[in-house]
Amino acid sequence: MSRVYNFSAGPAVLPEEVLREAADEMLDYRGCGMSVMEMSHRSGMFETILNEAEADLRDLLQIPDNYKVLFLQGGASQQFAMIPMNLMKHGEADYIVTGQWAKKAWQEAQKYGKANKIASSEDKTFSYIPDCSDLDISPNADYVYICENNTIYGTKFKKLPNTKGKTLVSDVSSCFLSEPVDVSKYGILYGGVQKNIGPAGMVISIIREDLITEDVMKGTPTMLTFKTHADAGSLYNTPNSYCIYMCGKVFKWLKNMGGLAVMKERNEKKAKLLYDFLDESHLFKGTVVPKDRSLMNVPFVTGNAQLDAKFVKEAKEAGLENLKGHRSVGGMRASIYNAMPIEGVETLVDFMKKFEKENV
Amino acid sequence: MSRVYNFSAGPAVLPEEVLREAADEMLDYRGCGMSVMEMSHRSGMFETILNEAEADLRDLLQIPDNYKVLFLQGGASQQFAMIPMNLMKHGEADYIVTGQWAKKAWQEAQKYGKANKIASSEDKTFSYIPDCSDLDISPNADYVYICENNTIYGTKFKKLPNTKGKTLVSDVSSCFLSEPVDVSKYGILYGGVQKNIGPAGMVISIIREDLITEDVMKGTPTMLTFKTHADAGSLYNTPNSYCIYMCGKVFKWLKNMGGLAVMKERNEKKAKLLYDFLDESHLFKGTVVPKDRSLMNVPFVTGNAQLDAKFVKEAKEAGLENLKGHRSVGGMRASIYNAMPIEGVETLVDFMKKFEKENV
Repeated sequence: MSRVYNFSAGPAVLPEEVLREAADEMLDYRGCGMSVMEMSHRSGMFETILNEAEADLRDLLQIPDNYKVLFLQGGASQQFAMIPMNLMKHGEADYIVTGQWAKKAWQEAQKYGKANKIASSEDKTFSYIPDCSDLDISPNADYVYICENNTIYGTKFKKLPNTKGKTLVSDVSSCFLSEPVDVSKYGILYGGVQKNIGPAGMVISIIREDLITEDVMKGTPTMLTFKTHADAGSLYNTPNSYCIYMCGKVFKWLKNMGGLAVMKERNEKKAKLLYDFLDESHLFKGTVVPKDRSLMNVPFVTGNAQLDAKFVKEAKEAGLENLKGHRSVGGMRASIYNAMPIEGVETLVDFMKKFEKENV
Repeated sequence: MSRVYNFSAGPAVLPEEVLREAADEMLDYRGCGMSVMEMSHRSGMFETILNEAEADLRDLLQIPDNYKVLFLQGGASQQFAMIPMNLMKHGEADYIVTGQWAKKAWQEAQKYGKANKIASSEDKTFSYIPDCSDLDISPNADYVYICENNTIYGTKFKKLPNTKGKTLVSDVSSCFLSEPVDVSKYGILYGGVQKNIGPAGMVISIIREDLITEDVMKGTPTMLTFKTHADAGSLYNTPNSYCIYMCGKVFKWLKNMGGLAVMKERNEKKAKLLYDFLDESHLFKGTVVPKDRSLMNVPFVTGNAQLDAKFVKEAKEAGLENLKGHRSVGGMRASIYNAMPIEGVETLVDFMKKFEKENV
């Protein structure tokens, strides 16, 4: 067996030790005689897995007691509807559009009320984060929505927008658990787990309790009502139980690594290796305004589409996988999530240097 | 490692060889250097997994070409809303209520239009299937809805209702792939996979193409529109990719076993062992009218709650797990899905005989 360095934007690399444990436990979880996949979600054994996962996540993010943690299905795309259906009490919300996912969220919200685009970076292919220190926040807005790290474009809000007292809702899919955050600044902090946490098929939503009400939009499905899941402790119906188990293992791995402050240092170190090289390279260049660069997703180009394709092909042959940029922007992108070891980034930079020598 | 016989109603027992393969491939899927959990859902490798899963399922069920196969999230509970939102063009549908899940589907549909309960077996704790040969089908009904196998109560429609030309929508979660079916009799045939197919976190919906339209109810989320997923081949957003992979393995296992006709024989043989014993026992008795008995879920009681509890406890000690009945009905229930070997049922019957001798 030989593992590659996998720079996929999601589903993405997972810690090898987590995968090893999962393989070892596949037929018999800790002597119980069955796989976690075969376990009733109402069993004591599974409830322990679920409760430990939640407790470890609360510990990692220091989630205040007045926030619920929900394990939901349907991906961020389903949250794009669920959020306005549950939160648009006055039929209005403000959206900051910094990429394709924020744009989709904004478009979906228009089905449910007045969704105002109060800022955007689409004019420069989403290569920066707009100044959000003094935006024209709508007086009736029920919330202000952002996508905090933009997977496709490689930008990140380094400072949260000034919402002027309005509830902040943030999609953190691609920066989830990459560094400590102050949860109390958010109304909802949510993300698909398939980038930085676990296998695909689950969203974790961390919601301030006062936002969880029965007073939702008429016609909101029971399954798209936050209260349904909050009241049932994420067990209203059968959850993606194996995904909860895998995420729980990653939470324990993160705690063993030293927690989110240590992960932040590690992620900064990895990203710096790559950005420093991009800034000095004569062939490759980063596509994002330096101050807004993501620690997780690093897009870059040579400026020559043929050369980009050659790079991706040769990198793959060298065991550096999934470096092709998103189909909507082209070029290259290295996603260097928590589980990407520093050796992976070093190997990538070495390979880029070699490629540059051979191709300039 | 010692595996138990797991009679859980879902998530439930999976074929041991499937779990073994999954464990072996966990860190390195067929030499690609990564786990299926780490694979981009847009990669060629994953597309092959997805396409093979669909092709094998089409083969097993002989699905006609004018039906789409969708891999969706949110469980049957989400379909309870998705179906009326997409299908209630005239704002009306007929529901046959044969258990808790059919009842929940009927209640959810009332959010979206006139949902008529045209038959029910609630008068006798859902212990039978009502005569559906000449029901009062509503002239304006867009569809007639059933839950074909009732997991909690252990009943099964042995004959589909006469819908008098109306579209039939059926939840087959707990009898999915347990025997051959004529897909062309259904408008929608759908089920959660966590009972008879794979790990939790996915629903497979098999839909006749003419029912997939843009003309859905106002306010239907993009993610709850069948057309969204049909147009994108279940890749509109990141699917539960690991679950698709596991279900694909189970489809191959079923084909290797000889297909659904062979599974039906095998399932009938297993169920007969248990029902024959229940019919002759002086202690245990089945709770379902014989003609409506499910091949998959077999509820039974001693008539004495204390003795029931003793049985469940001692059975567990003997390696026969999850025999407790659903919390809403009590007693016992043995779920004997495709992956339960005949030895499991034989062991259970032997244990019941021994328990009867000791306790009568």
